[in-house]
Amino acid sequence: MEKDRVLRILNQFAAGQIDQEQAWLALQPPAGTDLDFARPDLQREDRCGYPEVIFGQNKSAAQISEIMQRLAEKSSQPILATRCSEEKYRLLQAQIPQAVYHAQAKIISLTREEPVPRGLVAVVCAGTSDLPVAEEAAVTAGFLGARVEKYYDVGVAGIHRLLNVAPALQKAKAVVAVAGMEGALASVVGGLTAAPVVAVPTSVGYGAGFGGVAALLAMLNSCAAGIGVVNIDNGFGGGYLAGVINRQSCHEENA
Amino acid sequence: MEKDRVLRILNQFAAGQIDQEQAWLALQPPAGTDLDFARPDLQREDRCGYPEVIFGQNKSAAQISEIMQRLAEKSSQPILATRCSEEKYRLLQAQIPQAVYHAQAKIISLTREEPVPRGLVAVVCAGTSDLPVAEEAAVTAGFLGARVEKYYDVGVAGIHRLLNVAPALQKAKAVVAVAGMEGALASVVGGLTAAPVVAVPTSVGYGAGFGGVAALLAMLNSCAAGIGVVNIDNGFGGGYLAGVINRQSCHEENA
Amino acid sequence: MEKDRVLRILNQFAAGQIDQEQAWLALQPPAGTDLDFARPDLQREDRCGYPEVIFGQNKSAAQISEIMQRLAEKSSQPILATRCSEEKYRLLQAQIPQAVYHAQAKIISLTREEPVPRGLVAVVCAGTSDLPVAEEAAVTAGFLGARVEKYYDVGVAGIHRLLNVAPALQKAKAVVAVAGMEGALASVVGGLTAAPVVAVPTSVGYGAGFGGVAALLAMLNSCAAGIGVVNIDNGFGGGYLAGVINRQSCHEENA
Amino acid sequence: MEKDRVLRILNQFAAGQIDQEQAWLALQPPAGTDLDFARPDLQREDRCGYPEVIFGQNKSAAQISEIMQRLAEKSSQPILATRCSEEKYRLLQAQIPQAVYHAQAKIISLTREEPVPRGLVAVVCAGTSDLPVAEEAAVTAGFLGARVEKYYDVGVAGIHRLLNVAPALQKAKAVVAVAGMEGALASVVGGLTAAPVVAVPTSVGYGAGFGGVAALLAMLNSCAAGIGVVNIDNGFGGGYLAGVINRQSCHEENA
Amino acid sequence: MEKDRVLRILNQFAAGQIDQEQAWLALQPPAGTDLDFARPDLQREDRCGYPEVIFGQNKSAAQISEIMQRLAEKSSQPILATRCSEEKYRLLQAQIPQAVYHAQAKIISLTREEPVPRGLVAVVCAGTSDLPVAEEAAVTAGFLGARVEKYYDVGVAGIHRLLNVAPALQKAKAVVAVAGMEGALASVVGGLTAAPVVAVPTSVGYGAGFGGVAALLAMLNSCAAGIGVVNIDNGFGGGYLAGVINRQSCHEENA
Amino acid sequence: MEKDRVLRILNQFAAGQIDQEQAWLALQPPAGTDLDFARPDLQREDRCGYPEVIFGQNKSAAQISEIMQRLAEKSSQPILATRCSEEKYRLLQAQIPQAVYHAQAKIISLTREEPVPRGLVAVVCAGTSDLPVAEEAAVTAGFLGARVEKYYDVGVAGIHRLLNVAPALQKAKAVVAVAGMEGALASVVGGLTAAPVVAVPTSVGYGAGFGGVAALLAMLNSCAAGIGVVNIDNGFGGGYLAGVINRQSCHEENA
Amino acid sequence: MEKDRVLRILNQFAAGQIDQEQAWLALQPPAGTDLDFARPDLQREDRCGYPEVIFGQNKSAAQISEIMQRLAEKSSQPILATRCSEEKYRLLQAQIPQAVYHAQAKIISLTREEPVPRGLVAVVCAGTSDLPVAEEAAVTAGFLGARVEKYYDVGVAGIHRLLNVAPALQKAKAVVAVAGMEGALASVVGGLTAAPVVAVPTSVGYGAGFGGVAALLAMLNSCAAGIGVVNIDNGFGGGYLAGVINRQSCHEENA
Amino acid sequence: MEKDRVLRILNQFAAGQIDQEQAWLALQPPAGTDLDFARPDLQREDRCGYPEVIFGQNKSAAQISEIMQRLAEKSSQPILATRCSEEKYRLLQAQIPQAVYHAQAKIISLTREEPVPRGLVAVVCAGTSDLPVAEEAAVTAGFLGARVEKYYDVGVAGIHRLLNVAPALQKAKAVVAVAGMEGALASVVGGLTAAPVVAVPTSVGYGAGFGGVAALLAMLNSCAAGIGVVNIDNGFGGGYLAGVINRQSCHEENA
Repeated sequence: MEKDRVLRILNQFAAGQIDQEQAWLALQPPAGTDLDFARPDLQREDRCGYPEVIFGQNKSAAQISEIMQRLAEKSSQPILATRCSEEKYRLLQAQIPQAVYHAQAKIISLTREEPVPRGLVAVVCAGTSDLPVAEEAAVTAGFLGARVEKYYDVGVAGIHRLLNVAPALQKAKAVVAVAGMEGALASVVGGLTAAPVVAVPTSVGYGAGFGGVAALLAMLNSCAAGIGVVNIDNGFGGGYLAGVINRQSCHEENA
Repeated sequence: MEKDRVLRILNQFAAGQIDQEQAWLALQPPAGTDLDFARPDLQREDRCGYPEVIFGQNKSAAQISEIMQRLAEKSSQPILATRCSEEKYRLLQAQIPQAVYHAQAKIISLTREEPVPRGLVAVVCAGTSDLPVAEEAAVTAGFLGARVEKYYDVGVAGIHRLLNVAPALQKAKAVVAVAGMEGALASVVGGLTAAPVVAVPTSVGYGAGFGGVAALLAMLNSCAAGIGVVNIDNGFGGGYLAGVINRQSCHEENA
Repeated sequence: MEKDRVLRILNQFAAGQIDQEQAWLALQPPAGTDLDFARPDLQREDRCGYPEVIFGQNKSAAQISEIMQRLAEKSSQPILATRCSEEKYRLLQAQIPQAVYHAQAKIISLTREEPVPRGLVAVVCAGTSDLPVAEEAAVTAGFLGARVEKYYDVGVAGIHRLLNVAPALQKAKAVVAVAGMEGALASVVGGLTAAPVVAVPTSVGYGAGFGGVAALLAMLNSCAAGIGVVNIDNGFGGGYLAGVINRQSCHEENA
Repeated sequence: MEKDRVLRILNQFAAGQIDQEQAWLALQPPAGTDLDFARPDLQREDRCGYPEVIFGQNKSAAQISEIMQRLAEKSSQPILATRCSEEKYRLLQAQIPQAVYHAQAKIISLTREEPVPRGLVAVVCAGTSDLPVAEEAAVTAGFLGARVEKYYDVGVAGIHRLLNVAPALQKAKAVVAVAGMEGALASVVGGLTAAPVVAVPTSVGYGAGFGGVAALLAMLNSCAAGIGVVNIDNGFGGGYLAGVINRQSCHEENA
Repeated sequence: MEKDRVLRILNQFAAGQIDQEQAWLALQPPAGTDLDFARPDLQREDRCGYPEVIFGQNKSAAQISEIMQRLAEKSSQPILATRCSEEKYRLLQAQIPQAVYHAQAKIISLTREEPVPRGLVAVVCAGTSDLPVAEEAAVTAGFLGARVEKYYDVGVAGIHRLLNVAPALQKAKAVVAVAGMEGALASVVGGLTAAPVVAVPTSVGYGAGFGGVAALLAMLNSCAAGIGVVNIDNGFGGGYLAGVINRQSCHEENA
Repeated sequence: MEKDRVLRILNQFAAGQIDQEQAWLALQPPAGTDLDFARPDLQREDRCGYPEVIFGQNKSAAQISEIMQRLAEKSSQPILATRCSEEKYRLLQAQIPQAVYHAQAKIISLTREEPVPRGLVAVVCAGTSDLPVAEEAAVTAGFLGARVEKYYDVGVAGIHRLLNVAPALQKAKAVVAVAGMEGALASVVGGLTAAPVVAVPTSVGYGAGFGGVAALLAMLNSCAAGIGVVNIDNGFGGGYLAGVINRQSCHEENA
Repeated sequence: MEKDRVLRILNQFAAGQIDQEQAWLALQPPAGTDLDFARPDLQREDRCGYPEVIFGQNKSAAQISEIMQRLAEKSSQPILATRCSEEKYRLLQAQIPQAVYHAQAKIISLTREEPVPRGLVAVVCAGTSDLPVAEEAAVTAGFLGARVEKYYDVGVAGIHRLLNVAPALQKAKAVVAVAGMEGALASVVGGLTAAPVVAVPTSVGYGAGFGGVAALLAMLNSCAAGIGVVNIDNGFGGGYLAGVINRQSCHEENA
Repeated sequence: MEKDRVLRILNQFAAGQIDQEQAWLALQPPAGTDLDFARPDLQREDRCGYPEVIFGQNKSAAQISEIMQRLAEKSSQPILATRCSEEKYRLLQAQIPQAVYHAQAKIISLTREEPVPRGLVAVVCAGTSDLPVAEEAAVTAGFLGARVEKYYDVGVAGIHRLLNVAPALQKAKAVVAVAGMEGALASVVGGLTAAPVVAVPTSVGYGAGFGGVAALLAMLNSCAAGIGVVNIDNGFGGGYLAGVINRQSCHEENA
């Protein structure tokens, strides 16, 4: 609890404006807001700078809709729900007509005021099959306030395609490298730029790719430094981390 | 190759100052500097902002010494060699007396001018056994120019110890969370701060910890967003990424 | 075989009330009751204090119905069948109209006399997706005679939600901690209560969660003591163990 | 923070006995006690009923000694350090002469007043190679106040050995089943008793036992209910959980 | 090539009955019989005592039918095709009306003369869900000429059910132990009988059973000796090995 | 960039035929040809001797069609798309009527001039279930210009079938060995021929085959030398490598 | 308990020769014989036909000596202790001078009367590195009464070496196939003989052999039927199973 | 057996020069040459073009010496023994003074006539730690008759180092790519050359590299075609395969 609030309560009690029991209660941390099925973390934005993002995969449209509205009451930033099918979006639209669907990224957004894009997050991916994950990263970073540039299908087997975009990458404040199969993209990108690289392994590939494990291990074992890895197919996580890094860099820039 | 240099060569050739073969050669990318056993990447600092860091584990003191000197000729930033035993350091000291050994971090450094600490990287770890990895991270981040604060032994089974340091963490530009066993520290830290969190799993623990795999998986599956993971026991990688994020934030700050 | 029964047989034989062959047979352990497809363990309640629970997953409604009735003849405690779809329940209802379906927990119960809830089992879960497993645990513990309180969606990334319910947890005789993803909930709960904690990993999550393995490993490697782990998604197993612990504590209480 | 303490501070402030800043500080949670290398969790006993147990494996004798003394100042219960070699004990004895070494269990204990053994924890193990782990469990449970009975070398390939001890197991308030290889002991024991069973897999065995993984998986997949599993070779964890269950049962008994 | 045949060819050539080229060809090993899609191993019965068994899973009814007929031309023993759906059987029946379907075992058989059952193979399984695999084993052993007795649902959590059938198991020349989950059945059976035990792990169970891996590992690590393990769910393999052992024992018996 | 081209640009600039900016641009590596969704690697044939092969699995018929046409503009060699369903082919045929479908291999080809088969690639497989993978290898090798001979269903359990075809294998310039289950085929073939062996593990088998992992490991651990392994079910990769080896051998032959 | 003994007790009681308590006790199963550290299973030979074999790995020479003597009192068959170093043997020899050491097999034996070798067990191994495991199997089978023939270094990469010994294998009543690396030996042997094959994977090999896992999986996935697999490096287990099969075949032979 | 030899035997028999038994024996395949401990495959060179290579790891110097001499009697090509320590070499030198030791590659060679280097095998490795494996590959390829060029320390994080050597790689008939950590080298090399690439993963790296598994998986999942993978750290296997490809290409060249 922030100091101001504690002092206010202390003074109210000392002044007799509130009684002992009221002071006791007021000094408790604010209770979570209970829905029947969920306790949205309404203080998340205060602590982490961005409201809770809804993981839509196992939730019904009705549940997403209810949490989304609850979060939107508290925040002026965009509210996001990831891993939502188009069908789920259609059902939700009945409740929240202004919600927008980002089809490739499978994200539903509810935006009061568009963030002004600042800084630069570059999203690169190795093959066309990695596109949905890359889009999830790009859309997420965008909603965290980043200007986003995308360079897709720049796999390392045709290394000149990647070298061609190197100058562009070097201007970014964070690069998201999305790749399945052998996941070598992260290492090569990591050796080409001074910015932090967020590596997102994808489950693209077959056989001994083991659903993204090969790419994940490659990225964790990268011979280049300055690389942080997120979960397999976790485009949201990658875009979020890149967005946070970008925001912080720009925040400082303007301070 | 940067445009200026290309234009200069073109003009020299057109002016007849160099002949056709010389121009051809000059347009080739600069060759790596070959030692007998290694090709130090002398352009790394230009591309990535920091000179190549030597992975000392499988190299002899003589090899490390030779690479270190070669790198130091090109850069005014500190040159680092990680995973070096004290014995290796003693041998190297004969060649490079001004080299310094950081015992817990097992890092040898060669510094021409001390970087002025800027920004803030916080390093937290879950137990005393995680200390060597945490120190590797802290020392590395320091050499990348970060002011470093350390909060050790703040495991989640005594959650109040962690909550006590939360205000400190919230001032950092990057938090390095080092933990073995169940690796839950990253998730709790991730929920307490707006800064990017770099998670470093350690091989501390036994049995079904599988040498750090349990902690690694926990960190990759964190329910908190804004977390990037590095390899098991890779304190260097964690400190480097945090240092890069911190540097970039401060660079912007001052621009 | 209990001593009384052996003595009775010995005396009957000595008294000539039964002959040698009858005595031989009577001294054999009671044969299992063979259905065509199963041998219900009718002595389970005598040995373990609770009748056999039917694992419904690979059995037909007819099979479940037949075993359920056979078990109900022997016991006055509730008979349970877990992992039953609603459709299976509908078919079974034709045979056993008084059977009840617990939809979220996917449990069918057949109760002669409701157990009076005693003691307290607290069921906490990390996210709304863990709900079906948590419900399976809660319903099971209830049928084993426990009073049950549920605290859902209290994941560690919003640690204050969990701290808010800590006082409630501290009153329980057993806490069931249900979590997927990084499974950190068990460790934090384990550090907040003196009661035994039963950890249930769930397959919630994606990518490198490996269907619950990440959470399972985290729970096995918990830095908190006093935690026992059950199989992935095994809400029944978690609720049963908690129910047994609770029952034993209360049994002693009243003795 | 307990209510009484908050009310006292409020009243002191209202009465002008402390000023605003003092009240603010007093309302903060008590800071951990920092040693140079560790932050002993001195409130653990208040929250969990037993003081922090020291994991001795990666700590020096001096570190263990210092933490042990710090913990002993706060608690009248026995202070334990697990995974300590005999050599470490010898060094520590110079500092704490009254410390006792339990050689097979590799535990150092520091006891002010011996707990009066209550209830009953039975420790069974499958083979003589499992003995060190079983002893670690037995010693731990004993220090948590349990009367302990041991039944060793009762593996399932000679099932009558186990059946012979079944009546004894049925009197226990918790059974610790320690087994390597195929880990079948837990399932058979689980089917013989109404008490909660704590299963401890060991790394005994070779080849496809994978250092205890085979036994661990067997125990997690037990066809018997009422079993909680701890980490491989974690005799301490098994004994602690059994001790907690036993204590709670007896606590109720006497209440 | 058997000696007789070589001598005959040598003598025919020496006698001028065949020329040099014919002798060369005759000395070549007999070519496999090529269908378009398969080369049935028509010498299998000569080498191994039983004709090739068709693995039906990835073959069409037409393919199975064609191979079956080709094999039946060479052998008077039953021809088997495993892993065949009922639908595949219906299609095949049009071609081979005398073929018989064993529904639970999913085996199609084509029998010229029924083998007279000899010896004894006992098939035990742990739960009702293991039944299809147990049936595949039982049917296979039967076609290899064994008298088969089945004892199903005798899992180790109700150990008396298993002890009740122990006398029966002790009469068998081979016991097939089929179990999923923790697979403990094999160890207990192995300790109760002098006959070889063939252990068949099944994929029954969930979570950390990993599709039969837990049971497989348990069986490989059994503390009882005299146990051979086959692949997960490989009822055919288990029944075949037991059938071979039984046949050999009886063959000797009658010799 | 090849030397000739650089010299030409230098001379054009020196001759004033192009200005400084034009020379700068011309000295840049040729940009990839961007479609909306992909950057076909049009220089692949120059670098690697064969145009890019399209991995059809996650691409729409329209996307494949567009890339195929773009690649065909640059190359006179056959353009291939692998992992295409028949339905995808039908849709594509509307755009490219001359495209051909290879049903078992699931490859679409677009051929301007048929390559004249040279050398010899032998494709052997262990069972009929491995056929689709073997066909993918055979078709691929054929389009790379190899004469292809196929020997299917020559598994090692009937070793004479394999020995019968050994003389044929010994004439090949590369042998592709395709096998699932225990993957022993590669080792036996490797011991029978002087040619390089390309081993392709398949996911055929069940249980502890783990989707081809058992075969993959067997092939990597072969006791025979001269074997290179490709990914599970990667018939294309196996055929391509064999085709490259064969082409190079013949290329030399004719040079 | 055998019927005779029960009837005798009944009659003794009815005749007044024993009282009620004595009869009760006499009807209990015989207790195991407790040493301090172990409960030798003295009834093992009655149930399984061979006395318990001592797993010597984690036992002291004194412990082995004591158990060995206890077992030898009950049985006239050879008593074995496996996995014993030569040093352990030397210590034990002081207690049991007549004990014999089998150096390559690392087995200590104590034999009252040599078993007359009957039947035939063939032991084949793939390479010279597999020799210790093969010897452990051969010695064990010998002590179970089998005549043993050994064919070592017959790996499948030189298939003719194996074919040369095929006629010998076809005379065996059981074949033990010992192989590391890709473990293909079991499949080829399985296709050459009608006898049951016991496959023993070894940890010989490196890299992706994963300490015998590759060979283990290969053997479990063998395309040949009639193969039972034991644990990695478990020569004892392989020899025991083969010995049991051989004994049973010969037992019948002579009956 | 070659046709000529069969015809000769036939004619000898017909001519009465040999009798029936002699003819029978002569038609048997030549028996392996048995040493006590090994059966050197003396026909390997006839079948595979190169004599058997001795895997020295688990063999004594005496054993290696004996096999080496036996092989050298049959072949004029170099005889190799891999994985030999320097100490083993010293012992062997006493027996075979002309044997040579290749220290970094840990290979002992025995050469009658030096092969004339032909063609070109390029060996590239990612880091200095990969050197021993790379040397094993280079030495092996050399003894198979290849001219060898080495390009070490050209990891992908400094991509220009690799691009600099690309023209050299493009002249090779086979490229061996040796890399640990993330193993990305193989993919980038595969995209730069038309020659077959042999990928050798190494166990270099730490943590989640899992002893080379990360690199192995990366290489199997390469997005570049024309790559064959060998076992982890198997420099011999990589060099052998490259040598075979090179030999075959040059053989054709000169034919």
